[in-house]
Amino acid sequence: MTETHAGEATETGVDLAFDEQGLLPAVAQDAESGEVLMLAYVNREALARTRETGEAHYYSRSREELWHKGASSGHTQAVEEVRVDCDGDTLLYLVEQDGGACHTGYRSCFYRTVDGETVGEKVFDPDDVYE
Amino acid sequence: MTETHAGEATETGVDLAFDEQGLLPAVAQDAESGEVLMLAYVNREALARTRETGEAHYYSRSREELWHKGASSGHTQAVEEVRVDCDGDTLLYLVEQDGGACHTGYRSCFYRTVDGETVGEKVFDPDDVYE
Repeated sequence: MTETHAGEATETGVDLAFDEQGLLPAVAQDAESGEVLMLAYVNREALARTRETGEAHYYSRSREELWHKGASSGHTQAVEEVRVDCDGDTLLYLVEQDGGACHTGYRSCFYRTVDGETVGEKVFDPDDVYE
Repeated sequence: MTETHAGEATETGVDLAFDEQGLLPAVAQDAESGEVLMLAYVNREALARTRETGEAHYYSRSREELWHKGASSGHTQAVEEVRVDCDGDTLLYLVEQDGGACHTGYRSCFYRTVDGETVGEKVFDPDDVYE
């Protein structure tokens, strides 16, 4: 990977309305099946890295750092397209998900109903993936 | 509609992690096509109303009030299922969308790429719907 040219990759055709923390929510959707996989947050740097590399990057609010999704698990997301909503304050990543999006081993983080019924598909054992 | 029994409808099987403003992001997805329609925010009351009535309710951060989606436009969302993500801080509404989700007339609020290319389907003329 070449040196980051943040200036280029942060230029978007649509003005983005980052919040007071400099973040936007980004929904990741499986580009083929349409399954909603997860929601995370991005800052300008994460969006720029995503566009430069073609792999989904987010900003981890808990770790307070740039987060290359799948860097530790291998479960990366190849980003086919980035969409933005009408008021520019939410992104939609259309991705090809390697393995599962969720650290619990499910394909999607939305593997339960709000009543607690499991409806998602488990695709890996977290003990095999995370140390 | 009968009197609100907030105590019942706010009890969820999964503990929800509302943020410091008492809100959670909720992604609305077309239950049939899988299209991601919009992202908005809910508080406990909006979630309770959604579960009581079967129609999507959100909390409007700009108007600072409960928002029954489609109340003015007629473009309501019948909620088939409410899912929650692994850490309980995002909801997914699986909906049957009447008309279009977006006030601009598009079926989905995500009708553009971040570069500004229009990729969504326009389904109504806002001038015919909003005064």
